[in-house]
Amino acid sequence: MTATVTLSSTTETATPVNGAEVIKQSPFLQAIVQQIRVNDGYGTYRNWSDELLLKPFILTKQQKRKISVEGDVDPITKGRIFAFYRAIALRIEQQSGLLCQVVVDLSHEGFGWALIFSGRLLLTTRTLRDAQRFGFDSLEKLGEEGEKLAQKGVEYAINFPEVAKA
Amino acid sequence: MTATVTLSSTTETATPVNGAEVIKQSPFLQAIVQQIRVNDGYGTYRNWSDELLLKPFILTKQQKRKISVEGDVDPITKGRIFAFYRAIALRIEQQSGLLCQVVVDLSHEGFGWALIFSGRLLLTTRTLRDAQRFGFDSLEKLGEEGEKLAQKGVEYAINFPEVAKA
Repeated sequence: MTATVTLSSTTETATPVNGAEVIKQSPFLQAIVQQIRVNDGYGTYRNWSDELLLKPFILTKQQKRKISVEGDVDPITKGRIFAFYRAIALRIEQQSGLLCQVVVDLSHEGFGWALIFSGRLLLTTRTLRDAQRFGFDSLEKLGEEGEKLAQKGVEYAINFPEVAKA
Repeated sequence: MTATVTLSSTTETATPVNGAEVIKQSPFLQAIVQQIRVNDGYGTYRNWSDELLLKPFILTKQQKRKISVEGDVDPITKGRIFAFYRAIALRIEQQSGLLCQVVVDLSHEGFGWALIFSGRLLLTTRTLRDAQRFGFDSLEKLGEEGEKLAQKGVEYAINFPEVAKA
């Protein structure tokens, strides 16, 4: 009986367990989760699992294609883009001890800039396009891309410390 | 007869002549004018004097107080803020030979950032607030403030050339 229950629950929750494991092993994914929870002033997501919180960041190519790139980026997508770059800033802060500012400028119908800086040093500079379709193939990809940007930012902070404090 | 005409025209156009003179002597004011004319694709301002073009940048304290800071910044004011920072970027480019990017982020009801950067170096960083009331006491003040920011940007470019090219 116990064996059956265990087996059945393993089968049913195979993907969720996997996702939770991926999040546990990625400091970047944990940083996004933290960003979302910190900004959850009304407790909307209090009972959501970390994996459920990150689910809207994952979009297949088909899903992306269905999203129109006409007009402005909707506030919920904007919120996700902010959370992504704030999480990068958080990872840079954790490793460099710097305080970072995040500026996301989405003025031209899905086009714009995402910038992270400290003092006079830009740690991350990304041009955004078709931001309406912001998303990643998988949790792993999301984690890798965020961590890669954070590491590059940390390198700049190490190479130009006097500019980051200017 | 000739003397009278000269006298009368001098009296009547005292302020305009003065304004034109101020613009002539300020490379920064000329840079704003250039920015506005470059972006005037429909030729709306073709027959306007430089002074008339810069007039909306000048607001008295009383005029500012009458402008509501509720809600978003209207597109025309945004355009003026862009022109101001693009002119600073142009002055930095003229003196440093760098190519500059301008990002103005006005997401929070008149609050935001104005950034000018080249490579990984921030040449200008300004926080904006009550941007609905963007304006200057006089042409001279506008010229001074813009030129001061440009000179500071040029100094950063000189001090950290390897970051500006990173």
